[in-house]
Amino acid sequence: FLGMSFFDAVNHAMTTIPTGGFSTHDASFGFFESAPMQIVATIFMAAGGIPFMLFVGTMFKGRFDYLKDEQFRGIMITYALFISILTLWLWFHSEHSLFQSLVYTAFNVVSVITTTGFATTDYTLWGPFAVIMFFFMTYLGACAGSTAGGIKTMRLIIVIRAVDRYIKTLIYPRGVFTIRYQGFPVKKELVMNVLVFLGLYVLFNAVLTMALLLTGADFLTALSGAATAIANVGPGIGDVIGPSGNFASLTDTAKILLCMGMLLGRLEILTVVVLFSPAFWRR
Amino acid sequence: FLGMSFFDAVNHAMTTIPTGGFSTHDASFGFFESAPMQIVATIFMAAGGIPFMLFVGTMFKGRFDYLKDEQFRGIMITYALFISILTLWLWFHSEHSLFQSLVYTAFNVVSVITTTGFATTDYTLWGPFAVIMFFFMTYLGACAGSTAGGIKTMRLIIVIRAVDRYIKTLIYPRGVFTIRYQGFPVKKELVMNVLVFLGLYVLFNAVLTMALLLTGADFLTALSGAATAIANVGPGIGDVIGPSGNFASLTDTAKILLCMGMLLGRLEILTVVVLFSPAFWRR
Repeated sequence: FLGMSFFDAVNHAMTTIPTGGFSTHDASFGFFESAPMQIVATIFMAAGGIPFMLFVGTMFKGRFDYLKDEQFRGIMITYALFISILTLWLWFHSEHSLFQSLVYTAFNVVSVITTTGFATTDYTLWGPFAVIMFFFMTYLGACAGSTAGGIKTMRLIIVIRAVDRYIKTLIYPRGVFTIRYQGFPVKKELVMNVLVFLGLYVLFNAVLTMALLLTGADFLTALSGAATAIANVGPGIGDVIGPSGNFASLTDTAKILLCMGMLLGRLEILTVVVLFSPAFWRR
Repeated sequence: FLGMSFFDAVNHAMTTIPTGGFSTHDASFGFFESAPMQIVATIFMAAGGIPFMLFVGTMFKGRFDYLKDEQFRGIMITYALFISILTLWLWFHSEHSLFQSLVYTAFNVVSVITTTGFATTDYTLWGPFAVIMFFFMTYLGACAGSTAGGIKTMRLIIVIRAVDRYIKTLIYPRGVFTIRYQGFPVKKELVMNVLVFLGLYVLFNAVLTMALLLTGADFLTALSGAATAIANVGPGIGDVIGPSGNFASLTDTAKILLCMGMLLGRLEILTVVVLFSPAFWRR
């Protein structure tokens, strides 16, 4: 209805909701220089990053539990934070109007955090602050129970609460503090596992970065390439693999390494790690 | 005895054992182009990174418990690994003899891991592989209970065992696995705290990197500057703050930020975090 051809519309619909990010154009979604189209895509990408159980609840049981869900609240706060800061940054540092800045920022922030990977503009030209913000967003990921990759909001909520609990136990060494999620206490076992996941996530990023450096990639390409592959986002940072570049110029070895990184991230690391554990094969 | 002037000898003795790394020469320890001197310094830096309780045991009780200590074994394996790999790398990629490669590598690896920060040569010229190895070493740190900074061997041992335990529980979901350190079971509470420490360590590195980028530092300087400040190592990576450069050209804001990073790292992060917690001031 907004003027996209039928072919483009079907293609982009199929890669927006499942946070896939494949576009029929080299300029990605930026090919459509239409604010309404970008706003619609932003909304549907965001929808693709919400736990699907919430939609199921609405469809089949008529429930509307969105604001009761801690992940939903978490991801909305994350969007609000990054979008508002970067909109102001872009508005002050470019010739775009406030509205245009908001549309650009919202689209690209939601695209990276939901690990969709569309781009409407080369946000790495927005200056070092924006670059580093997008780099950190690469790791976040949207909600567990959606199609997004990355670390995911649920784990981040538990990590933040573990840190909070830790600080409290430092102040009140004999206090008893329980980590809760959705009102229910979370077992220490689970918290430990989330923290181990986070550690392995960082470790595999470091290992993949190192491997990519050995293939001759420059530092920025290696670091952001590892991050974007493991989180299944798409674009990295820098001249080579940034939102206006692509991975074609990397060596074959680098591409195979990135494939392994993408699999590792999509399978949430642990399923892959288990395969390399002697205990698994002895079982 | 090896030919250093009295003044230089006293100064370097006082900054080698306490893993301080201050030198009376711009070229740092590289000023003394003497292999015996560098070997002696390497041994004493390594000694500065060993838990002092082991020395106390030897001195006052005649015990020789070094090989029984898991941290001692851990750090020695770490040295052996990094030194052997980098010695071979340097030997193949430079005109140095195997012996000279070993002396250079051993000195600089031990200097970075014990967070001493002396340098005998600009190891960032050894190629991208060596650079990234030194960058990772910046985080490690030597043993808890020594003067070294960084994450420290004891924590890394516990993290590795937590990962191992996690993989085992994935394979045997009903199995009961205990993490042990020095033969004694470690409480889940403690493991969680070590993992939270690691998470905060990475987080503060990220925040400091971002802050340094905003002061106009380039990416490598910001990233390695944050790492080297928080771990109290000394030299970073790159043209500006690498082993043959220094921090003088950074802006005043960057220097204040790095000071905060150094304090944060030296005080092991949590003592500082507690000060910013409302619960602490309400107590």
